[in-house]
Amino acid sequence: MAARLPRKNDQASIAARRETLGLNGDVDLSAYVRSAESVTGVATLPVSVAELHVSLGDYVLSDEGEVVETGRAEEDVVVPLAHTEGGLTASLQRGAKAAALSGGFRTYVVADRITRASCFVCRDAGDALTLARWIGERVDEMREFLRAADLPELSRYAVLREAKTHVVGPMCHVLWRWTTGDAVGPNMMTRNAYGLNMAFVLPNAPVPIERVMLEANMGGDKKPSFEFFQSGHGKTVIAEATLTDKTIARVLRTTAADLDALSWAGTHGAVASGMQSVAFTPASAIAAIFAATGQDLGMVGTSSMAHGTGRRVDGGLHASIRFPGLEVGTVGGGTTLPTAHEWLSLMGCAGPGRVYRFAQLVAAAALALEISASAAMATAGSENFFRAHFERGGLR
Amino acid sequence: MAARLPRKNDQASIAARRETLGLNGDVDLSAYVRSAESVTGVATLPVSVAELHVSLGDYVLSDEGEVVETGRAEEDVVVPLAHTEGGLTASLQRGAKAAALSGGFRTYVVADRITRASCFVCRDAGDALTLARWIGERVDEMREFLRAADLPELSRYAVLREAKTHVVGPMCHVLWRWTTGDAVGPNMMTRNAYGLNMAFVLPNAPVPIERVMLEANMGGDKKPSFEFFQSGHGKTVIAEATLTDKTIARVLRTTAADLDALSWAGTHGAVASGMQSVAFTPASAIAAIFAATGQDLGMVGTSSMAHGTGRRVDGGLHASIRFPGLEVGTVGGGTTLPTAHEWLSLMGCAGPGRVYRFAQLVAAAALALEISASAAMATAGSENFFRAHFERGGLR
Amino acid sequence: MAARLPRKNDQASIAARRETLGLNGDVDLSAYVRSAESVTGVATLPVSVAELHVSLGDYVLSDEGEVVETGRAEEDVVVPLAHTEGGLTASLQRGAKAAALSGGFRTYVVADRITRASCFVCRDAGDALTLARWIGERVDEMREFLRAADLPELSRYAVLREAKTHVVGPMCHVLWRWTTGDAVGPNMMTRNAYGLNMAFVLPNAPVPIERVMLEANMGGDKKPSFEFFQSGHGKTVIAEATLTDKTIARVLRTTAADLDALSWAGTHGAVASGMQSVAFTPASAIAAIFAATGQDLGMVGTSSMAHGTGRRVDGGLHASIRFPGLEVGTVGGGTTLPTAHEWLSLMGCAGPGRVYRFAQLVAAAALALEISASAAMATAGSENFFRAHFERGGLR
Amino acid sequence: MAARLPRKNDQASIAARRETLGLNGDVDLSAYVRSAESVTGVATLPVSVAELHVSLGDYVLSDEGEVVETGRAEEDVVVPLAHTEGGLTASLQRGAKAAALSGGFRTYVVADRITRASCFVCRDAGDALTLARWIGERVDEMREFLRAADLPELSRYAVLREAKTHVVGPMCHVLWRWTTGDAVGPNMMTRNAYGLNMAFVLPNAPVPIERVMLEANMGGDKKPSFEFFQSGHGKTVIAEATLTDKTIARVLRTTAADLDALSWAGTHGAVASGMQSVAFTPASAIAAIFAATGQDLGMVGTSSMAHGTGRRVDGGLHASIRFPGLEVGTVGGGTTLPTAHEWLSLMGCAGPGRVYRFAQLVAAAALALEISASAAMATAGSENFFRAHFERGGLR
Repeated sequence: MAARLPRKNDQASIAARRETLGLNGDVDLSAYVRSAESVTGVATLPVSVAELHVSLGDYVLSDEGEVVETGRAEEDVVVPLAHTEGGLTASLQRGAKAAALSGGFRTYVVADRITRASCFVCRDAGDALTLARWIGERVDEMREFLRAADLPELSRYAVLREAKTHVVGPMCHVLWRWTTGDAVGPNMMTRNAYGLNMAFVLPNAPVPIERVMLEANMGGDKKPSFEFFQSGHGKTVIAEATLTDKTIARVLRTTAADLDALSWAGTHGAVASGMQSVAFTPASAIAAIFAATGQDLGMVGTSSMAHGTGRRVDGGLHASIRFPGLEVGTVGGGTTLPTAHEWLSLMGCAGPGRVYRFAQLVAAAALALEISASAAMATAGSENFFRAHFERGGLR
Repeated sequence: MAARLPRKNDQASIAARRETLGLNGDVDLSAYVRSAESVTGVATLPVSVAELHVSLGDYVLSDEGEVVETGRAEEDVVVPLAHTEGGLTASLQRGAKAAALSGGFRTYVVADRITRASCFVCRDAGDALTLARWIGERVDEMREFLRAADLPELSRYAVLREAKTHVVGPMCHVLWRWTTGDAVGPNMMTRNAYGLNMAFVLPNAPVPIERVMLEANMGGDKKPSFEFFQSGHGKTVIAEATLTDKTIARVLRTTAADLDALSWAGTHGAVASGMQSVAFTPASAIAAIFAATGQDLGMVGTSSMAHGTGRRVDGGLHASIRFPGLEVGTVGGGTTLPTAHEWLSLMGCAGPGRVYRFAQLVAAAALALEISASAAMATAGSENFFRAHFERGGLR
Repeated sequence: MAARLPRKNDQASIAARRETLGLNGDVDLSAYVRSAESVTGVATLPVSVAELHVSLGDYVLSDEGEVVETGRAEEDVVVPLAHTEGGLTASLQRGAKAAALSGGFRTYVVADRITRASCFVCRDAGDALTLARWIGERVDEMREFLRAADLPELSRYAVLREAKTHVVGPMCHVLWRWTTGDAVGPNMMTRNAYGLNMAFVLPNAPVPIERVMLEANMGGDKKPSFEFFQSGHGKTVIAEATLTDKTIARVLRTTAADLDALSWAGTHGAVASGMQSVAFTPASAIAAIFAATGQDLGMVGTSSMAHGTGRRVDGGLHASIRFPGLEVGTVGGGTTLPTAHEWLSLMGCAGPGRVYRFAQLVAAAALALEISASAAMATAGSENFFRAHFERGGLR
Repeated sequence: MAARLPRKNDQASIAARRETLGLNGDVDLSAYVRSAESVTGVATLPVSVAELHVSLGDYVLSDEGEVVETGRAEEDVVVPLAHTEGGLTASLQRGAKAAALSGGFRTYVVADRITRASCFVCRDAGDALTLARWIGERVDEMREFLRAADLPELSRYAVLREAKTHVVGPMCHVLWRWTTGDAVGPNMMTRNAYGLNMAFVLPNAPVPIERVMLEANMGGDKKPSFEFFQSGHGKTVIAEATLTDKTIARVLRTTAADLDALSWAGTHGAVASGMQSVAFTPASAIAAIFAATGQDLGMVGTSSMAHGTGRRVDGGLHASIRFPGLEVGTVGGGTTLPTAHEWLSLMGCAGPGRVYRFAQLVAAAALALEISASAAMATAGSENFFRAHFERGGLR
């Protein structure tokens, strides 16, 4: 290997790296030295904005871990979108306008769970089944253990809710299911799962355990899966709007019948191609909001898993999208970066107590884009979709 | 809806938006006014770096659309990583070191195709089958049509390679398969597919066509699918390394046997949870490079689809990862943004003729992280994985 | 349409049909006139037999619906196999012998649930979520309603255990989860689900319900699905055996290392081809036993969903297979046919109280075939697999 | 293990087995002694019949392996159904009647390929890619090799058509794609694939091959997979019918609107549960015909993979079903058994040259059941579906 670059984040090391790599100019990276190792520069993306009219629920987490709606209010909110896809912001704004003129979006937080999928390898399936039963009977005890244990690595924010076991061969996979407050929580649940595995299960298990793995792919850790799609990983959120025929014609330049026909063909196309997510382009909106607000971009794929529906109703079309697992946070991680904090604040989503609000806004914004992009695609020959790309493709 | 913000990107509109939204300070957004509508600010992410030793192939696209290797050389390359996940850069660097001490990564570009999945709705399946046959027999003619047609909306860069039809019900889905040069190509293939659909197929089709849709979900447009996972959507790339036992012990602090045991459990966990991608955490690396280099972040999920393997061999462990569709470009889109251009240049990947090089570096970097993260997870109880998160979690 | 055949099952109608269709000879169909409409003849398949040595658990269903093991004993059991695939019986017998010489099979019943997936279409997602919560809070009440209601169509055998709701768009899908005694139970749970839907939910629901469907594909009704693969539909059973190196060499003519290599490649092949079931050829054994014992052959595909594992252990190889949903019965349906009853009796599985025993024998027989077929495939070039087909292909 | 039963199929051995097992009565098994090892008795199922009116295509296989339609004629055909599900035959007959009164079914054979998925394990991915290219360039040569080689194990009926390679890790998976005449062909393609692997590839390969496996799960060998669902494994067949509103009302007792609403909910339910097959109950019909006609019952699951569609059209509803891979034969295997031969003859499908006809009839019968069962489910509360099960459940 070539001459090794210095690895630290003190000013001298940073300067040495930049010089060695021939990077021009001075940059002040002091805000980022705790973000990663070997920080050397920045990446800057433009942020555009769109306005949504949405009926947002107020939610609290009950002691039992259920998400409970305590109120609901309509608001106009501006959402930030970091991307360079010409036409995307205009399209999302158009969809938002169509929804607003039809009464606005309505959003719901359905559930809140994130999982760390550990695995205990036993001698055989018989032992693994014994272990699975043993774990299943001790969830209350384990929750209490985490609360009471005096281990510095444990997090008080990550609360164990359930443990789902799945035995295959000699493996006892365990989906530790957590709530993690206003943070996404991978770090805190990793620490608590490790604590459970090593300090509770391993010393007390009724059968010999040959091998313990903190994570062995039964969950949805940055990889889309059916488990993730159905059972969720983060906040499960639904957004919906009932568009009027008049708005569909005037704003979206199409009809409910044409949207219905597109939805029908697109759903069958998705089935034919083996998509787990059946929707139009949720990842475009998710990525744009995630990049603006300091969310983990490695979670764009999983958080974009979605199930969209369209259905003709009297006088219009009902459109909705279900996100099984929006992996969003309003504290911790990249949300503390200066620009991220600014954009979260713009939405009223910076800091504790805001994560359910934020999750709903993400879902509503994504539905806005679904509606508009679908409408463009539903025009004859998808002409409007083509035009938008041809005329506004911009940098693409 | 509340008072409508101005939508344009002239300085006055931008200033008015910022004032209305209460955004502080002056920002110069002149570099971004063509990127999106309603640009209002920026998002800035820290970029860290890691060094890879990799045997890179030189590739050209043959006239028939095959990717042909014309040479191969070992290089040390520095890759930029935009993220805020404490430990990620250090881990990726550790994996790269282990590979370098074992002879380095080897990367291969296997294929290059991107698809736009149009759909023609006919009267019934009989007609749709007639249309499918008719299309299948005219691919050469259609390629020539695109080359010769004097339509301003057509792109010369997007070259039609094949057309795969799939009839279900009255729908004739068509996967138009393209090469798009050094750009990712969604925009240019959208324009050419529209031209084909409306100016070639629709007027000449042997059966009545009731409805034409540019895109109806048979492809992998920002949504992971089995079609995408198997047949690809972008550059199909494989990266591999054969790690020595000594390096596994000294650098990765584990053994080939432990890595093998983890891979076995993780693959079965992935099967049990219905993952289409079977790998460790490719999205973390993909997202970090994409964010630094101006790639489309809405494609993080699809581009992160991957099939990883681990296998004990004499004296060590063979590790590899297959990316069916890296949707990467070195021209167009966000690659022209100032910071993106800088980071692409650092890798020798800015501009035309560099996309296969870039795709290989993305794959090698992802494999570096796979190796190190797996090694941390393979230690007893995954202690090293836990420690990395506990001690270096940083902002998370 | 041509002259309509008579449809009834009286002797004259049967004779008329046979004459009209030119079917030769007299057949006595009196045993079958209640099996189906328009019974006209028979199909006869040869049945071969194989002997298994297996440790079978004794299981009872607890009041809470859990499957509880109350004892365990080793037995030699003969299983009937109705098929015409030359080599299959010999191969299954060879696998059984290898297991027997290594200590025999061990089988476990893990769970017992079968689902009817109804769907309530509401006005919108908000209403559907309200309904889902309402249903979730009333499972005990609904169980009691079924027990107490004086409706002739209800079955006392199908006991409601849980209700899993899944809202997408305006749909509230409900997985009614049942135990059904020694019958497979589709008929009885259909009747009880209809009763619940129409007499409990519809009149009492807190929101207007636009449409009620008894079954809308969220379950696994004769169609393999990930939901079925993970959560089961029938009896969830695991079979395992730990083969000794000596037996692998002498009986199976291969080695643990070669079996391990095959398992590795086969699992990755399954991932690459998008299989939900990862195993070798479970359907061959399932179909053969189902056909002999009067099980519903339309359930061969779903009941054959399986997750097989192979793992080298000290002195040999551990092999196992997990069936998430064996849809088997020992009463009702085709089990009452004369030959089916005879073959079930041979296994000690005819009549009430035998279904867990039967499910275990099915799983053990399938594992026997997995072991032997894998061994043949694991020989160099899969020579023994080829030979078996070449020399014993028989009628194939 | 208990006293070993004799294994042979001579009369004395059969008699000894029957006596040892306590099986009563004399049976003449002479027709079955070549079907399997250790034949000991029979299983007998009732066969009922239904009449279909269908427009069947005449098809031939071109020299290039394409299925070409050479004519088309309407016929009334009686199909045999071996099952014990009360109501099934009546329901299928009702669907057939509705189709007949609306102009009948129309069926199409789209393609004909069956695959054996071999795997060559190389040193690394680089070598595997070299091998994949080498194989890809030699398909014509390999086809000629099979034609000319003087190896007794080769079959002249199994003709190699294409070879699709898929490299992952050091594995070069190869889907050998065959046509196999009027037989399903697993045996003959196994023999030819073995010949190719061992006598052509292994001695001539440009890289060292560590391990050859005849089958490693990239195909669809009795296990449903996305590969199978999309690319087929056997005969790809589509059946369709355009039902009139009048017939839907009079025969099916429902409306096009209600059928459309059911189809919409059922498709979304299928997506939500991760079904690869989206249809109603194709396996019921497939299993019934397979059991009557001596098809391989282990292939019920794969052959039942299907993609059904429903769509309102002027004056009625268009219904269709696509079977990607009907694994059917009219020669060989169980088709030679006495009853199977009788039932195949009834349909005009016994012997050579009939397999495309048979495949179409299977698809039409399955669509008949789809239509009727859907109609029963589409009635308010699915009352008619419930009634059919309640009143005609018969043996279930």
